[in-house]
Parts: sequence; C-alpha cells; structure tokens
Amino acid sequence: MYGLIGKMKAVPGQRDALISILLEGVSSMPGCLSYVVAQDPADTDAIWVTEVWDSQASHKASLSLPSVKDAISRGKPLIASFDKYIETVPVGGHGIKAAA
Amino acid sequence: MYGLIGKMKAVPGQRDALISILLEGVSSMPGCLSYVVAQDPADTDAIWVTEVWDSQASHKASLSLPSVKDAISRGKPLIASFDKYIETVPVGGHGIKAAA
Repeated sequence: MYGLIGKMKAVPGQRDALISILLEGVSSMPGCLSYVVAQDPADTDAIWVTEVWDSQASHKASLSLPSVKDAISRGKPLIASFDKYIETVPVGGHGIKAAA
Repeated sequence: MYGLIGKMKAVPGQRDALISILLEGVSSMPGCLSYVVAQDPADTDAIWVTEVWDSQASHKASLSLPSVKDAISRGKPLIASFDKYIETVPVGGHGIKAAA
C-alpha cells in the first residue's frame, strides 16, 4: 500500500471552500482505500489530508482523472501553501478495506 | 469527528513487533471509524498511526478497554519515543464509514 499525510494552508477565509472541493468525488478514485480530510483545530487555515492507496501507481493515475484535474484547477487558487507532504507505507488497520 | 496523526519510534529492530501489537483488535474499538498503521519509508524505526473516531470521548474510552490496556502494556517497552501527536477534526472523506 501507499500512503500520504499532507498539510496545506488555505488562503485566509477559504478553508471551507477548499475542503468542499477536496471532498468531491473521493469515493470514486480507483485504488483509493481511504481519503480523509480534516481541519486543524489549532490553525483556522490549515487542512490535513490522509490517504491510503493500493499502490503508488493508483495515486499517480488518479491525478489524470478528469474529475481530479478539474478539482485541482479549482482548488489551486484557494491554497496558500503546502506545509507537509509525507509518504508512508500503510501495513494494515481498520477502515482501509472499502476499496473503490 | 475526532482525529489523531501520530508518529512514534520503535526501539531499534522492534518496529515489526510493535506494529503487530498496534494492529491487534483495531477493528473492534467502539466509535473507531479508521485506524491505519504505516511504516515510514525514510526511517526504519518510525511508525505513523492515523486515526478517526466518532468523538474524542470514544477515543478516550478505548484506552480503558481490556484489550487496549493489554496492548499498551506489551507495546510500551518497544517504543523509544513519541515524535508527533497531532489532533485533527475530520470532516469527511472515503473509508471512514465502516464504524465498529
């Protein structure tokens, strides 16, 4: 499996709008086993995204899906910065079996 | 919802043993919507744990479950340090609906 833990900051006041875009269509990405979007309670602009994929190739392929490309183009102007981008190797757990 | 993103370091050589303990019984914790254990590919001792709970109270209550208390007592000697403990507020996504 392939995992990502990312933290981004929205342009001030745009966190909710950015979260809505991030949550669109997350249930229909082939190979995506988990994709969770969370607010950072300590920073009103910050968003955490944690992802589990069956493979790094599936994650890469998702970036070419029309729905994802569209979301990226609409989300980009609302992103102020990427603060963290951590790759992981998930080995098991609960909630990662509902493969798309 | 209540989320946690944690990073811990195992005692050298004990990562796999610690991961096995962390994965025991994770599917039977009331209120736990997602619990993913991952290796850090950049650090042979490091483990990432990402959790989603229906509430902070459910997470707190889990620490009193006999199975969890037992796992903590067996896992503790294998942990060298806790490097990160980030609380989040998950707002949606994929893979968090398989509630226990």
